[in-house]
Amino acid sequence: MSEPETERTEATPADEAAGHDIYGEDGAVSAPFLAHVGAAIADRDTLALKRDVGSLHQSEIGDLLQALSPEQRRALVRLMGEEFDFTALTEVDDAVRLDIVGSLPNAQIARALQHLDSDDAVYILEDLDQADQDEILAQLPFTERVRLRRSLGYPEETAGRRMQTEFVAVPPFWTVGQTIDYMREEQNLPDSFSQIFVVDPTFRLVGAVDLDRILRTQRAVRIEEVMRETPHAIPATMDQEEAAQIFEQYDLLSAAVVDENGRLVGVLTIDDVVDVITQEAEEDLMRMSGVGDEELSDSVLAASRSRVPWLMVNLVTAFLAASVIGLFDATIQQVVALAVLMPIVAGMGGNAGSQTMTVTVRALATRELDIYNAGRIIRREMGVGLLNGIIFATLIGLVAGLWFENMHIGGLIAAAMVINMFVAALAGILIPLLLDRLGIDPAVASSVFLTTVTDVVGFFAFLGLATWWFGFL
Amino acid sequence: MSEPETERTEATPADEAAGHDIYGEDGAVSAPFLAHVGAAIADRDTLALKRDVGSLHQSEIGDLLQALSPEQRRALVRLMGEEFDFTALTEVDDAVRLDIVGSLPNAQIARALQHLDSDDAVYILEDLDQADQDEILAQLPFTERVRLRRSLGYPEETAGRRMQTEFVAVPPFWTVGQTIDYMREEQNLPDSFSQIFVVDPTFRLVGAVDLDRILRTQRAVRIEEVMRETPHAIPATMDQEEAAQIFEQYDLLSAAVVDENGRLVGVLTIDDVVDVITQEAEEDLMRMSGVGDEELSDSVLAASRSRVPWLMVNLVTAFLAASVIGLFDATIQQVVALAVLMPIVAGMGGNAGSQTMTVTVRALATRELDIYNAGRIIRREMGVGLLNGIIFATLIGLVAGLWFENMHIGGLIAAAMVINMFVAALAGILIPLLLDRLGIDPAVASSVFLTTVTDVVGFFAFLGLATWWFGFL
Repeated sequence: MSEPETERTEATPADEAAGHDIYGEDGAVSAPFLAHVGAAIADRDTLALKRDVGSLHQSEIGDLLQALSPEQRRALVRLMGEEFDFTALTEVDDAVRLDIVGSLPNAQIARALQHLDSDDAVYILEDLDQADQDEILAQLPFTERVRLRRSLGYPEETAGRRMQTEFVAVPPFWTVGQTIDYMREEQNLPDSFSQIFVVDPTFRLVGAVDLDRILRTQRAVRIEEVMRETPHAIPATMDQEEAAQIFEQYDLLSAAVVDENGRLVGVLTIDDVVDVITQEAEEDLMRMSGVGDEELSDSVLAASRSRVPWLMVNLVTAFLAASVIGLFDATIQQVVALAVLMPIVAGMGGNAGSQTMTVTVRALATRELDIYNAGRIIRREMGVGLLNGIIFATLIGLVAGLWFENMHIGGLIAAAMVINMFVAALAGILIPLLLDRLGIDPAVASSVFLTTVTDVVGFFAFLGLATWWFGFL
Repeated sequence: MSEPETERTEATPADEAAGHDIYGEDGAVSAPFLAHVGAAIADRDTLALKRDVGSLHQSEIGDLLQALSPEQRRALVRLMGEEFDFTALTEVDDAVRLDIVGSLPNAQIARALQHLDSDDAVYILEDLDQADQDEILAQLPFTERVRLRRSLGYPEETAGRRMQTEFVAVPPFWTVGQTIDYMREEQNLPDSFSQIFVVDPTFRLVGAVDLDRILRTQRAVRIEEVMRETPHAIPATMDQEEAAQIFEQYDLLSAAVVDENGRLVGVLTIDDVVDVITQEAEEDLMRMSGVGDEELSDSVLAASRSRVPWLMVNLVTAFLAASVIGLFDATIQQVVALAVLMPIVAGMGGNAGSQTMTVTVRALATRELDIYNAGRIIRREMGVGLLNGIIFATLIGLVAGLWFENMHIGGLIAAAMVINMFVAALAGILIPLLLDRLGIDPAVASSVFLTTVTDVVGFFAFLGLATWWFGFL
């Protein structure tokens, strides 16, 4: 195997390590690279691993870990020892991370965490048992222990948990020159930062200065003259999703996190927020299909357990709909065509309703839908429901009438279709709006209620009309 | 109405303009604020508007525009004249933006665009007619015209369209001191930036330096000694979603955009990428429910048109399922309980299948699912399908048997449930995988095929087994 002799700087990803690209054409970890790493693990070739895996970006190591078998993962981390970049563990599934961390002695974890940014350290610590957490924290230097304990003291999924406790803060009376000199001399700066915070002697936040502003300003100018106010300081106890919305709305790159007394305790950065946005979008999607927060690495039992509750709820709906059909069994026995056609009425209503529901849930999530436009949107959806109802009623009525050579049946299904698609549109917007007002997440609960409505109304309208009509004849 | 006398700096949002918060408790534009602005528009009170709306953040003005009526919006922009911040137009629905821009003379648009970052100007220009675009561009200064034309020359939804053409680039032989002095003197810098690019005399990209790195380095050090390589430079023709994935993977704040010759043409920033991520997540969700790219401000006709195709496709599925039922009409006439229970079999299969499908579609989108773990995930889903199938078969079988006081029917529905939930799980993973391999977006097309499978198999298994069993008796 020929090895390219190029010199690499720290920031260059060793995509071509050992002559193989880590990613293949399809964006997944490539088979040759995986085989190469697998062989190195089997040979306990520490040197090759440190060279080829050690030079990868944390997210690339994360992808690699996910692609390896559990035994390989643990062996890789063990073999690389101190050179394994623990930041990579923030890039893998919870189950993979817990498996790897669980296989390591607490002393090694403590040593590794000292090299991490506090937000990454918290991310790895927060899922561990209290006992392991305490043992690891006890082995950290005082300052770091205090910082991590403070972050861990905030509730899960808050800004305080996601913040980085390393930041640069200066007093307002310093000059730009003093600030630049301080940064040139101070060794203990965060790895990267895009703004400097300004604090009073009690560490209360008074403002911030972006680095480009500092670079554009003469040395003699005082910081308080170039700083801007920080109207978007984020309380440490704020929910991470709410914090993400502030970042999105005001296009922030980073924001100060303050405690209940307005004291600066950390900084939230956009890369963490991007993770939150992706994660929340995923959660919404998963919840709408009743999958819960399962992960790809979950076992059959875990995945089954996360999906049963949703299916159970839907089962109740299904029996409710069935009992509506049961009311009309005599009519069905007389006109079997009704049994053949009735799923069309219910199904098309369900599809139309879920279109409206998706638009509504999304508009509620992005706060585009509020009390000012709710009336207009409800009227619009009623219009769409009626219009599409008439279009599909005509179509389905004609096809059904021709199929069963019975225009009574065609007329009945057409009438039932208009009713159900109109009701579906109304339910598709009113159910999420109502749930939202009651403080229930509309993404989770809407679709069950919607299906119940479209099934019950669909079956009732079609079979009820038919019973009345054929009884009438 | 009492007016607070606080002095405001540029960056302070005038949330309390005229004594009213722009946002109410629920996060929507508050009624008092809206009434206040509405009154000022009606009174043509330009002064009040410039003070209260002019001091808002662009995204707040965007929210305000969305909450106003079309007439009020146009009047507001007209009354504010040169003081209306056109960046706000990048924060509203396409329909609202087009309506406002369409009501303004091209000369005014051209004047306004000169104050915008190039990416925002492109965002506003790209949806206009070619004739309007040309007329507006012709009124811009030469440099800006060339820059905007270059961006507009790249295809829609590419990095070239989203990039900002303002950036700071220096030669590698400059010192840190020279660079800082240049930034202190140069007036024509971008509004904000977090890194400086390093280019050769032909403007080919050779590296980048983060601002914090510059601030930490002694003045005498040469730029080439502190610059890092830029392995993640983004080709201008790259799809914006792909570019967003690179930002996410490598936690970038900004990245160089290069043309086909490796020359620096612009910079893509994380705030644009956050918008792309949100937008793409929304699109995926909308596509899964067949809503297309409709917006909340669309009319009844537009919304109806965007939803009909999906309903039409589902209609074909529905008739296919109905025709399967039609095969067994004789059996149904004999045992009406089958008609009552058959939607349960099909519906539960559909729900279980869509759980699997959601997990699969999401894992494909995030590239967590690839050929290495596909086998394992398929086996897992088969396990989940079988396990949940057995759980719900037992439950439904018992309830149905007791309901109709007929254990034959209980046994039949249980057998059909196991079959359908197993097939649903298999279809839920294989359909998206297959579509993905064929280059079709699995988010769009999967659910129709899945419903077809679960309906057809559900009805066929239940009614088929029943026909065989009761014929056998």
